[in-house]
Formats: sequence, structure tokens, C-alpha cells
Amino acid sequence: MKVESIHHVGIAVKDLDKALEFFSDLLGLKVEKTVVVEEHGMKAAWLKVGPVWLELMEPLGPEGPVAKFLARRGEGIHHVAITVEDIRASCEELRKTGVELVYEEPKVAIDGSLYNFIHPKSAHGVLVELRQEAGG
Amino acid sequence: MKVESIHHVGIAVKDLDKALEFFSDLLGLKVEKTVVVEEHGMKAAWLKVGPVWLELMEPLGPEGPVAKFLARRGEGIHHVAITVEDIRASCEELRKTGVELVYEEPKVAIDGSLYNFIHPKSAHGVLVELRQEAGG
Repeated sequence: MKVESIHHVGIAVKDLDKALEFFSDLLGLKVEKTVVVEEHGMKAAWLKVGPVWLELMEPLGPEGPVAKFLARRGEGIHHVAITVEDIRASCEELRKTGVELVYEEPKVAIDGSLYNFIHPKSAHGVLVELRQEAGG
Repeated sequence: MKVESIHHVGIAVKDLDKALEFFSDLLGLKVEKTVVVEEHGMKAAWLKVGPVWLELMEPLGPEGPVAKFLARRGEGIHHVAITVEDIRASCEELRKTGVELVYEEPKVAIDGSLYNFIHPKSAHGVLVELRQEAGG
């Protein structure tokens, strides 16, 4: 399996505007885009740090993975995303060794990239997002 | 304040060898160096993912920040490290706005880089390591 890069680090926050006072106003990171992802019950601000992104995620309501994470653990780092060349081949290879993935098939993100997650219990407590870039 | 890049993501694990079966054998990431940091009661394996590092940290005993993190939260992502141009200026700027730092003065790492940490309570639950590269 070939991991190409770390694409982003996802951080769960209660209030995006308040979090941006720290990450953007104070640390000086620029918000490049903000997206609403209804399917996952969240909105996210994407900040660029060199070649890597930070994804700040705020839940839209009490449901969804970000709301549940906040209820269980509070604000903090939620996942790390790595880019792979061929997500389907990677998922198949991982499943063969007994690694548990969150989705049966990769999902398509707003930007056309494909993604799936390795369950934290298969990755030493780390929620690892696998991504294949659009057109990759 | 000028953040240049994400330097690494730190992951707390119980057993480095076992964690490397996943991160190295399975994901294919290469261990570039292994260091023992007596001061922080841990040993760490450094794996490179493009321009970013993963730092897998195993406690040397029941004391130290990694052991305490594992006891409290279990294995998982422990911190994210960002590179700044001038760590002393950055720390001063952060302190002026009420941000709590872990050390009074930056510490010197084995490789000569300088580091300090922003306390998670000042950074939305994220332990943020500030780094200034050696010679930077």
C-alpha cells in the first residue's frame, strides 16, 4: 500500500467562529473554503498550512459523528487523512488483513475525491481517513 | 504570527512494535529514526509521509505525559506540531492574548530544534506543539 501524503488533520469544535478566533485570527491561518456537509451533520472550515489542510468541523445539530465525538471526548483532534493512489485497492488490501473500514464502498466527497475511514480500533485509536484525489 | 507548515502528528501508543505492524508493515510508512526521550519518559519512532512526519510515542514507564494520556484516553492522536519562524516571538505574542503555554521558555530537542506547547485548553482541545527548526 502506497501512502502519498498527509492530506489534512480534522479537528472537532463546538463553535466554528470561536475556533477561528484562535486558528485564523491568532495563528494566522487562512480559511480557504467553508462547506456544509449535510450527510455528516456538520459544517467545516478548511485552512491551509503549507501543503497540509486543517479541517475544523462544527456539528449542525445533536446528531452525526462530530456531535457524538464532542459529547464523548470534547473538542480536539478527530482524525488524520492520508492520500492513497488507489483507494479501492488499498481498502481491499486492508480488509484482507482484518482491518475494519467504516464504509463498505468509498464515498464521493463534494470535490469529487473518494474517501473511506479505517476504524480507530484497527488503527491504535486513530480515525484514519483514506482519500483518493479527484482525477487521481 | 507566521505558521510555516505542519511538522508532525504525534500518536500515543502502548506498544511501538505492535503499532509499527500497522503503520509501517501495513500502511507502508518507513521508520526513519527511533529516539529515546528520557526527559519525557518515552521512546518514539518517526515515520515520514511526504513532507510531514508521524511520531509514534510509547511510554518508558508509568510516569510522563504519554503514559498519562494513555491512562486517561487510550491510544490515539496526542498532538499536532506546527513550524514557526521565530518561536520566542510567537510565544510572546500568544501569551499577550492570554494563551497558556506549557513551558516558560522553549526547550531544545535532540536535533537542536526549539519547541513549546500550547495548552489544549487554549486551543480547542488540541495540544499544539510549536517548533522552530534548528538553524531556522
